[in-house]
Amino acid sequence: MTDMKARPGHLARRFQQIAVAIFHAEVEKVGSDLTPVQYAALATLRGNPGIDQATLAAAIAYDRPTITGVIDRLEQKGLITRRVSDRDRRARVLQITEAGEAELDRIEPAVDAAQHVILRGLDADEAAVFLRLLHKAIDATADLGRVLHRDPPGTGAVD
Amino acid sequence: MTDMKARPGHLARRFQQIAVAIFHAEVEKVGSDLTPVQYAALATLRGNPGIDQATLAAAIAYDRPTITGVIDRLEQKGLITRRVSDRDRRARVLQITEAGEAELDRIEPAVDAAQHVILRGLDADEAAVFLRLLHKAIDATADLGRVLHRDPPGTGAVD
Repeated sequence: MTDMKARPGHLARRFQQIAVAIFHAEVEKVGSDLTPVQYAALATLRGNPGIDQATLAAAIAYDRPTITGVIDRLEQKGLITRRVSDRDRRARVLQITEAGEAELDRIEPAVDAAQHVILRGLDADEAAVFLRLLHKAIDATADLGRVLHRDPPGTGAVD
Repeated sequence: MTDMKARPGHLARRFQQIAVAIFHAEVEKVGSDLTPVQYAALATLRGNPGIDQATLAAAIAYDRPTITGVIDRLEQKGLITRRVSDRDRRARVLQITEAGEAELDRIEPAVDAAQHVILRGLDADEAAVFLRLLHKAIDATADLGRVLHRDPPGTGAVD
């Protein structure tokens, strides 16, 4: 039997698990409880004001049920607003609020710090190679289709 | 603002998300609904018969509440047995059953196939470099402590 712990699938999970734990630890240092997916949603809405939930879900590769919960929580926190689209009454159009912008500004340094901690075992050259190969591996599976945008129950979503 | 999608944290999640989806797709091909964590638990129990739940949780880096649910499901499927430890009446000692061994044998080729699909974008040299650096990055964060063995709600656990 192959050593399970040497398998890419196992390493992928450990790496993600560590990345999430580091994210939480760093943003907690600045007194925020924003989760990775909440952060991803907020940052995407700042760059793309007025997109709808489905577009947001696709942009950050989370499934729609997860995004719906995330949007609920961000709205409860006053960080975003949601309203019915003028063009499609079934769609909900999202906007980041001033409080949402302020929260992003406040935690951005912590999120940056987390990225460095995640890769602290690698020197600059190694990190560059690693990220290039990680991108390449991810891109090569994009054609496996929409299923890969589904977060299986309890996977990585951290809503 | 840094491009969120280029960040290691985001890439870590995408990679894990893809790895899990590929795992499910491959084991489904052989008619199994075993999840990654169920597989990890079964494979570990085959190699380490008679360990308790806490040891299993530590071995595969899942938190204890997650493992408890996983053990419940594996027991319901008849793939493992659980009994009170002779040495410590609070501990539960785990054994893989013959059906569990058969299930592992049956899906092992699919799990191996999944590992290849996960890295199909990389040639052999690239894959070796990538896995070495991924190991190195993970090992360098091991001292961040026990918190990293906690699966944050909804992260990677896929029970």
